[in-house]
Amino acid sequence: MSLPLPVLPPLLIAEAVRRALAEDLGRAGDVTSAATIPADATAVAVIAAREPGTIAGLALAEAAFCEMDAATAFAAAVADGDRIDRGAAVARISGNARAILAAERVALNFLSHLSGIATLTRRYADAIRHTKARVTCTRKTIPGLRALEKYAVRCGGGSNHRFGLDDAILIKDNHIAVAGSAGEAIRRAKGFAGHLMRIEVEVDTLNQLREALQAGADAILLDNMQPGELKEAVAITGGRAVLEASGGITLETIAAVAETGVDFISSGALTHSARALDLGLDIDVSA
Amino acid sequence: MSLPLPVLPPLLIAEAVRRALAEDLGRAGDVTSAATIPADATAVAVIAAREPGTIAGLALAEAAFCEMDAATAFAAAVADGDRIDRGAAVARISGNARAILAAERVALNFLSHLSGIATLTRRYADAIRHTKARVTCTRKTIPGLRALEKYAVRCGGGSNHRFGLDDAILIKDNHIAVAGSAGEAIRRAKGFAGHLMRIEVEVDTLNQLREALQAGADAILLDNMQPGELKEAVAITGGRAVLEASGGITLETIAAVAETGVDFISSGALTHSARALDLGLDIDVSA
Amino acid sequence: MSLPLPVLPPLLIAEAVRRALAEDLGRAGDVTSAATIPADATAVAVIAAREPGTIAGLALAEAAFCEMDAATAFAAAVADGDRIDRGAAVARISGNARAILAAERVALNFLSHLSGIATLTRRYADAIRHTKARVTCTRKTIPGLRALEKYAVRCGGGSNHRFGLDDAILIKDNHIAVAGSAGEAIRRAKGFAGHLMRIEVEVDTLNQLREALQAGADAILLDNMQPGELKEAVAITGGRAVLEASGGITLETIAAVAETGVDFISSGALTHSARALDLGLDIDVSA
Amino acid sequence: MSLPLPVLPPLLIAEAVRRALAEDLGRAGDVTSAATIPADATAVAVIAAREPGTIAGLALAEAAFCEMDAATAFAAAVADGDRIDRGAAVARISGNARAILAAERVALNFLSHLSGIATLTRRYADAIRHTKARVTCTRKTIPGLRALEKYAVRCGGGSNHRFGLDDAILIKDNHIAVAGSAGEAIRRAKGFAGHLMRIEVEVDTLNQLREALQAGADAILLDNMQPGELKEAVAITGGRAVLEASGGITLETIAAVAETGVDFISSGALTHSARALDLGLDIDVSA
Amino acid sequence: MSLPLPVLPPLLIAEAVRRALAEDLGRAGDVTSAATIPADATAVAVIAAREPGTIAGLALAEAAFCEMDAATAFAAAVADGDRIDRGAAVARISGNARAILAAERVALNFLSHLSGIATLTRRYADAIRHTKARVTCTRKTIPGLRALEKYAVRCGGGSNHRFGLDDAILIKDNHIAVAGSAGEAIRRAKGFAGHLMRIEVEVDTLNQLREALQAGADAILLDNMQPGELKEAVAITGGRAVLEASGGITLETIAAVAETGVDFISSGALTHSARALDLGLDIDVSA
Amino acid sequence: MSLPLPVLPPLLIAEAVRRALAEDLGRAGDVTSAATIPADATAVAVIAAREPGTIAGLALAEAAFCEMDAATAFAAAVADGDRIDRGAAVARISGNARAILAAERVALNFLSHLSGIATLTRRYADAIRHTKARVTCTRKTIPGLRALEKYAVRCGGGSNHRFGLDDAILIKDNHIAVAGSAGEAIRRAKGFAGHLMRIEVEVDTLNQLREALQAGADAILLDNMQPGELKEAVAITGGRAVLEASGGITLETIAAVAETGVDFISSGALTHSARALDLGLDIDVSA
Repeated sequence: MSLPLPVLPPLLIAEAVRRALAEDLGRAGDVTSAATIPADATAVAVIAAREPGTIAGLALAEAAFCEMDAATAFAAAVADGDRIDRGAAVARISGNARAILAAERVALNFLSHLSGIATLTRRYADAIRHTKARVTCTRKTIPGLRALEKYAVRCGGGSNHRFGLDDAILIKDNHIAVAGSAGEAIRRAKGFAGHLMRIEVEVDTLNQLREALQAGADAILLDNMQPGELKEAVAITGGRAVLEASGGITLETIAAVAETGVDFISSGALTHSARALDLGLDIDVSA
Repeated sequence: MSLPLPVLPPLLIAEAVRRALAEDLGRAGDVTSAATIPADATAVAVIAAREPGTIAGLALAEAAFCEMDAATAFAAAVADGDRIDRGAAVARISGNARAILAAERVALNFLSHLSGIATLTRRYADAIRHTKARVTCTRKTIPGLRALEKYAVRCGGGSNHRFGLDDAILIKDNHIAVAGSAGEAIRRAKGFAGHLMRIEVEVDTLNQLREALQAGADAILLDNMQPGELKEAVAITGGRAVLEASGGITLETIAAVAETGVDFISSGALTHSARALDLGLDIDVSA
Repeated sequence: MSLPLPVLPPLLIAEAVRRALAEDLGRAGDVTSAATIPADATAVAVIAAREPGTIAGLALAEAAFCEMDAATAFAAAVADGDRIDRGAAVARISGNARAILAAERVALNFLSHLSGIATLTRRYADAIRHTKARVTCTRKTIPGLRALEKYAVRCGGGSNHRFGLDDAILIKDNHIAVAGSAGEAIRRAKGFAGHLMRIEVEVDTLNQLREALQAGADAILLDNMQPGELKEAVAITGGRAVLEASGGITLETIAAVAETGVDFISSGALTHSARALDLGLDIDVSA
Repeated sequence: MSLPLPVLPPLLIAEAVRRALAEDLGRAGDVTSAATIPADATAVAVIAAREPGTIAGLALAEAAFCEMDAATAFAAAVADGDRIDRGAAVARISGNARAILAAERVALNFLSHLSGIATLTRRYADAIRHTKARVTCTRKTIPGLRALEKYAVRCGGGSNHRFGLDDAILIKDNHIAVAGSAGEAIRRAKGFAGHLMRIEVEVDTLNQLREALQAGADAILLDNMQPGELKEAVAITGGRAVLEASGGITLETIAAVAETGVDFISSGALTHSARALDLGLDIDVSA
Repeated sequence: MSLPLPVLPPLLIAEAVRRALAEDLGRAGDVTSAATIPADATAVAVIAAREPGTIAGLALAEAAFCEMDAATAFAAAVADGDRIDRGAAVARISGNARAILAAERVALNFLSHLSGIATLTRRYADAIRHTKARVTCTRKTIPGLRALEKYAVRCGGGSNHRFGLDDAILIKDNHIAVAGSAGEAIRRAKGFAGHLMRIEVEVDTLNQLREALQAGADAILLDNMQPGELKEAVAITGGRAVLEASGGITLETIAAVAETGVDFISSGALTHSARALDLGLDIDVSA
Repeated sequence: MSLPLPVLPPLLIAEAVRRALAEDLGRAGDVTSAATIPADATAVAVIAAREPGTIAGLALAEAAFCEMDAATAFAAAVADGDRIDRGAAVARISGNARAILAAERVALNFLSHLSGIATLTRRYADAIRHTKARVTCTRKTIPGLRALEKYAVRCGGGSNHRFGLDDAILIKDNHIAVAGSAGEAIRRAKGFAGHLMRIEVEVDTLNQLREALQAGADAILLDNMQPGELKEAVAITGGRAVLEASGGITLETIAAVAETGVDFISSGALTHSARALDLGLDIDVSA
């Protein structure tokens, strides 16, 4: 938690929130509030946790309320990355009642989804705290939300893998098959990549690992190996490359994997299957 | 499954897929394939189920491959809404190898997420098949994907609640508090709504239910009531309004709720907490 | 006029205004002002009515001026939905002269068009004030402006029909022909629609009306019927469904239609053929 | 009609049509057709004129149908700019029934609106056919549709004024007031404008006209002058500048204005107040 | 320099800057600053000239900093169009350190590119200051930046040619070939153009010039003529049309061309080949 | 040239081209062709080199023609990255004359700009061919065109530096100042970066170089060092990190720099100051 968090670009936040508000308000806006709440009514609302977890996405919640009415006051009671208890207040919002009611669901949808990811990541990270290994996400993210979800992984204490197909080279079996060998694929990759792009190779066997090491891969993804084999891989590697274990790792198995000495453990479930954190908004409207 | 599915607008599919591809390809595109796969290599790929489930989102997967190369052939082996077994082939793709590899993750991310929702919905729907009740989604969706997720709920045999704040009136406690009473809130809503907009009221007690019925609500959301109270609500209503049960309903409790005679049972978990369906793509590249 | 107006989503206003400004300013901006007005000149302007009418769209006019210069002061002298006399002041604007001149036409184009719709709607609404019927718009709107035009209809005292193909079911002759009968089409629609979506059926004859009532339609559109037939339809219906009269209704014929007892009278002309309200901007520039 | 028409940029057509379709299909698409029309039903439709007029916008109607399904066949029976009689077939469409029904309203909304403008323009143009004067539009257009509406004016035989604030200089009273005199304003404009930008000046009196001529304006807008004064203006000008008459000109008065010898007569009503042309689509669906 | 500059539409500035920031910040933002600079560190920065030149684009630099953090203070020390010496301060920025560092490159990229164009234009303009001729740009601009580049040309004392294919008619050899003759092409153009659109014709020979003059072209582009021939062209024209010399004109040859008496000299190099002006940002960060 | 080129994402090409076409066609399209060229005229055009160089951007030129008319045939005579002689044919285009004329300038603007960058890069690359060093670009790119310009650098045989602030860590003096020391800054960066993100440090002195090496930087940017100092830096480094020389390197000095043994030499001029390659389009229109 003491590590600094990444900084989401402000335009990225604004665009995500605007798209979500447009999706929820549709063509006619919040018809219920228009019909029943006077235009000048004010409200005070509190977002509270219905279960313990780790928070992520406060800036998106704030933006949702402020996009509806720039005069809305949003005071966060915690910070992204903070662990919170059941019942804890997360933020306090005050302002125009219609604006708060109109933004409520969008704000909660962002906050619950991203906090759900942070909470799950934290659980994984806690399970391997006694090792040097770090849990990392994958590209298995909900379409359109990758940058936000990867930020949430960081809030939960996880590390980030590639953000896309373009920021690192990850050679898989198909690339190796076409290139002829792992060595040849890595050679091509080195010729292609600039000096600030890393090259990782996915291997299924220790022999492939040795070939990748010899060819000078920066990182090696050990796919679906059992702890015993992973331990052997760590020994073979001897610090010459970063090692990432991957494949069906769960909260039950992650400690054993981490104890093998690998550097990173990746899990798609962090982003594609995290349960939303149960957060609620209690509001008090004064007409 | 015999009910017709909604038709996703083609532009909505195209925009969602383009946004996801842009997110994954970034500024430099798929650097791994560019480095290791010849430009004219071809490939044949099969998307297969690693676990049983219900499929949703085939059109998005197809669009992902075709956006990368319009000449890609995508042949679905099943249809949206179909139940599939573990190991079943879902679709067969053939075309330019680089294009298929570049679209793979986006196609799978859509298909796994939406099929995950359909699969979870199907499980809920199956649990209440012996009743007249239907399971329905909420507005608790992943920001930016609402229309797709609501479509996936339909693929799983569920029904759709409001798509946004604008297509129906749903009066909650705050609206009632400001209006003074449920009756007054409903009266205001009726004056406001056109003839094609329905009015639903959320009630916590049977007394509120009676007031809402008297005021002429079209539908009533029974919030957090136990089966006993729900049964009473059904009796009181006597068919004068549609009844929706809501609040913390799980796969374990849904049958008991449905057996009370309510018409709809809503669950946010269908969309905000569905686990991705495990789908994989096996590809054979020929240089 | 005492009924609350809908609330246009702020992003919808911003996008409409930005698109219009971009369209008018093009690539080089307001070349006339750049050439002849000093950068620091200020101006005071008044928007005034050149004819009586009902105002709609003040928020769009304000946004046009403020988009050009956030420091512009816009003070509305009336509110949307207000009737105004010839010569009445509508709003007073003060600020940077170039910014006001650059936004003038866009502000007036929105305000004149939407006020034109509100004014025409008011005329129809006034003509049937002695009945319970309400005039309602259709989907025959100017492409790209539907939400704004439907809002203007509300400002004129009218009611809103569907906002799109997606927020209610309206079964027409073709749907009935393919389904085999109105009853079968309604049955399919009921199976398809969620609990918050209404179903309306268009009928040409009283026999079709009877069939639709029996099948349980929520609303029935009586197409091109004369007052005598409409009166009969009202009697047959006996309150079992909402009745909407439609087809070639004019300011001359609307009272007779309303007096038959129908609930709604729809007219495409409200939005597709309303004359712009004549509004002008008088400006005083101080260099 | 023998003059060539402008060519609307294809992307401009595509964007206008996509925005309109998105507006009409919303998040859930055409629910009525999804519920009642089988996915593989086909249809044949004819767009016909319910009143005589001049057609404009066929490319937009075609694009609407083809955006929904690229396989739709659209065969225009007339061309933009053609006069058509009541009952005349305008276009014949065949293809997937759901796609045609989903695009119908958008296609008709474009075609009716633009043909309404073309028809009104044609009426003005016909009234002054015996003179050399041409009727021209203004910047008083429906926001977001300017390029399309100006194209429609051309289809009706009219001429186009400025497309925006950026493509010509039009000096009005305020610019003159700040600059000190019409002569000074024109001098500034000449210093500012490049060699391909024209300069027009608005004048209220014949003295202002003389000043503008002396300062070398390319064109002069004679605001709210009666035929007698206009005739005098023509004589004073003696061909040294293009003359445009403007201000409250109607179908009744336009001939007298044209006969004074002015070159252009501008009317905002062409675009801001044209009645939609009554066009209908008759469709035959085969399940 | 005393001539007023055009006013870039604020939305055009905002969009260009947002696109550039999105391009630079990508999905993960400024990772270096996030890792090493505390969130609350502040900074003071000065943009200074590393070489003499003419400044253009200050509003874009300011927008870049303010988009990252609205609280950033940007104080320009010079104005667009000003000549500056080597070492001169251009602007002083103070605010959040991370925000300033994140916007630095985008701000400098705009400012260096546009100032480069202004500086080159100024050099051409200075070379012909003793004549009445003005240097003007072309449509040979960097895609996506045309309006900004044409503004920069103005900052350098140049004039603007067409902004696009739509704001003036420029008849070239192919148009003449198809039309049959320059006279016929001009006749068609006059029939087509409204009263505020100018018509220019490109000619290669003095005979073509005579034909174009006779047909009444507003302006004539003399393509690739030597000074002697240009002088003759000026004499033949006798003020009946604006004359533009074009084709391979350099800083070495421009004076001789201007001295022939032509009105405008166009050069694509102003925009497509201007070297960036060397500007630097010196920053002082206080943690 | 034998190294594979990156693959530009198709959507990135489409968006860049559409933006450029919209910019050039404006609201009224190509008025000259509309006025003078019949709608059904066809044309054959050849893009040819007016000077020798290296080609980049053929896909953008092709897209420009095809966006205007999908039926246009575009046949490239060379490939991106190819060196071409003066007079060489680059591509042959045939199709609708108006479409080709409307796309001509956009196609040439892309092709000339990107080929200019490729040509300049090639010149730098050729100058250091006898060494192991490679020339690389920077983030000093024309706003909005970064991905395209970096692709052009590759076509010229150069290497790519960071694509944005988000895909690698580059620690500069300010980051070091705030962190306290290069070692501390690198330590923070290592804690922050995932396993696929590289860390580069900018150093001004050999002492800083030693500190950076000790702290384990992946790459080191040697700023403004003379060849003698660079040679020493290479010796000190002894292969422990990638070395990049930067700062005011020109075609005259690059060989001496490369011969010091550094791995990469970066130059902002490649992208911010490349002269456009002189390409022309000769067209033959048949009415």
